[in-house]
Amino acid sequence: MSSTGSLLAHLECRACGIEVPADRLATVCPTCSGPLFASYRLNHWNGRGWREAISGRAATLWRYRELLPVQSVKAITTLGEGLTPILALGAVPEAKEIEVWLKDDGTMPTGSFKARGMSVAVSRARELGVRRMYVPSAGNAGVALAAYAARAGLPARVYLPQGTPAAMERACLGYGAEVVKGGSTIGEAGASARRIESGGGAFDLSTLREPYRAEGKKTMGFEIWEQMAPDGMPDAIVYPTGGGTGLVGMYRAFVQLQALGLLEQLPRLYSVQPENCAPIVRALRDGKSQATPWEGAKSAAPGLLVPAPFGSERILEAIRESRGGGATVADHAILEAVGHLARRHGISASPEGAAPYAALEILLRERAVRPGERVLLYNTGSGIPFLSAS
Amino acid sequence: MSSTGSLLAHLECRACGIEVPADRLATVCPTCSGPLFASYRLNHWNGRGWREAISGRAATLWRYRELLPVQSVKAITTLGEGLTPILALGAVPEAKEIEVWLKDDGTMPTGSFKARGMSVAVSRARELGVRRMYVPSAGNAGVALAAYAARAGLPARVYLPQGTPAAMERACLGYGAEVVKGGSTIGEAGASARRIESGGGAFDLSTLREPYRAEGKKTMGFEIWEQMAPDGMPDAIVYPTGGGTGLVGMYRAFVQLQALGLLEQLPRLYSVQPENCAPIVRALRDGKSQATPWEGAKSAAPGLLVPAPFGSERILEAIRESRGGGATVADHAILEAVGHLARRHGISASPEGAAPYAALEILLRERAVRPGERVLLYNTGSGIPFLSAS
Repeated sequence: MSSTGSLLAHLECRACGIEVPADRLATVCPTCSGPLFASYRLNHWNGRGWREAISGRAATLWRYRELLPVQSVKAITTLGEGLTPILALGAVPEAKEIEVWLKDDGTMPTGSFKARGMSVAVSRARELGVRRMYVPSAGNAGVALAAYAARAGLPARVYLPQGTPAAMERACLGYGAEVVKGGSTIGEAGASARRIESGGGAFDLSTLREPYRAEGKKTMGFEIWEQMAPDGMPDAIVYPTGGGTGLVGMYRAFVQLQALGLLEQLPRLYSVQPENCAPIVRALRDGKSQATPWEGAKSAAPGLLVPAPFGSERILEAIRESRGGGATVADHAILEAVGHLARRHGISASPEGAAPYAALEILLRERAVRPGERVLLYNTGSGIPFLSAS
Repeated sequence: MSSTGSLLAHLECRACGIEVPADRLATVCPTCSGPLFASYRLNHWNGRGWREAISGRAATLWRYRELLPVQSVKAITTLGEGLTPILALGAVPEAKEIEVWLKDDGTMPTGSFKARGMSVAVSRARELGVRRMYVPSAGNAGVALAAYAARAGLPARVYLPQGTPAAMERACLGYGAEVVKGGSTIGEAGASARRIESGGGAFDLSTLREPYRAEGKKTMGFEIWEQMAPDGMPDAIVYPTGGGTGLVGMYRAFVQLQALGLLEQLPRLYSVQPENCAPIVRALRDGKSQATPWEGAKSAAPGLLVPAPFGSERILEAIRESRGGGATVADHAILEAVGHLARRHGISASPEGAAPYAALEILLRERAVRPGERVLLYNTGSGIPFLSAS
């Protein structure tokens, strides 16, 4: 079998509505510079047959290949990523009245959820002729690009801000990527990356600046559905938000599953951000359709230090359309949550991945989640790379 | 469903042949002090029906629960471990003539294959009334015990030799375990552990000194069979050997699958050890049925620094019965293999996990593996915890 059976049709801009062909390399919308998204031929396609077919496939995110953009099996660049565990946490002392579950992307091949987007984006970029890649990153995305570029046999450059955990920089170098350090946030690292790389012919894999990392993130939603729907979907999903592709990806997955008649109701999506860098939660509370840059951003979770997320309209849309919301958490509560997840539940989480646990008490107090509901926390990455810094 | 359907019958000593009841806590053989192994009621059991049943179950090692020792679903202590990826490596420059695959246990919840044994052993110990546990460890087993003890809500103590990677010690502490450091090898740490813990009522989870970690390791064999058999089992499995339970576990899995009519021929098992600590490979070459302690042991791979593996008869039996063999590798070749796996293939391996890659060239040169054969390398753990030490 040389074709994946992908149903990819074209790319579209949700802001200005235009369609762009998907068979050549694309970045952002040629008209408004907003993010482009993949569109699939779902009409009259047999969703129920698909549901049965995927259960017999290998336990990686490529089991969902008809709804992923890669056309040729040969282009698939995989490290076995996906189908990460969903664990029952039992009673959480701070939020006893709700049923708490956790999806653990710390068990991905590169230690974080970033492997999802990079596996799909690198595969598709390679299929469309890319020969060199770069990305600005707070750490995990850089490690993931370095690993998948190595797997693809292509060179990669990673732009890291100062203060990135040393183990992550070493991992990028270990996989053979070049590392350029500078700036204090991923936004500054990104600006510097685009300046240096401009016109050099390397492909930019920044969050939402190309269409396919979001497609990889979509598999978070497919997996939650495949793993939980038989026993009951979560009422709410609580997700840490830096760049925000995760929320956008899950939302797109659920909407596609609805279109296929495989899901009745979307889980409510909640964004968790640090108190001192919460542009999305602020925009939600202020009723804005777009986030404004956060001044003086600070966070104990490097991956959440994104003062001006690109494509914030799409993040806010995902949250609102799912009837979800947001919460901010203090740095000390994030670090406490890292400890609680490890000591109470045996789970190693990065500060980013622990933030949803820290938000539980607040969401319950604000009646965003209600007693008796099933709540899924998303742990986006392993805590191990942070141990060398403590 | 409250019962796992486990077919556990009793425990047996392979050296002196006696049977011991499995419904109470057991350590070593009461007669000869050798390791005890679990025995199952396989006669007339429907292996083919089981093959179909497991494919519909969640992607953890508990999908094999009928052939694991835990009786009650409630006792299962899980972090979602198991069904780790098996990746095609493509042409390895040093061994172009063979088809190379790699199973990646670096993606386990605690970063290594040790999660397999600990998940099963902690579950069973808890089921049989254990309330406190300890283990001597070169690092990974300690991290795994710490995590599963936290998941079970039970206290644990980990005995680590000097020179254990700092990230591993921090991980043990992070999960809430006590850490006691001392000695230069796991053997010395173990002696000190047994002296300190003697009579204190805590349960010893040392390799092969209780019967159930080996049962967890057995799932490595079940997974290789489930994942590879449809397209062709490996001819040879190349495995790094410290304590050796992995080889013993895989051998037991394959023998059980044969007894059920689900596997025709055992893959040949090859043990890889460091040049300066190779008691198993030496015993193989000398035709001995038991290993003698290695003097002046040294290794770049802390997990392979086991000068006197307990239960060496069983390790040697597994290798010989499968018509396998052994190879030793130099420290510099192990570290070079870590780099090759990362830069050529995108795979993060610990020094232990990279040792089989280093052995490929030697095995091919010695004609232990032959051109055209399918060879599976076992990566036992992630390289991330080692990055802080470099």
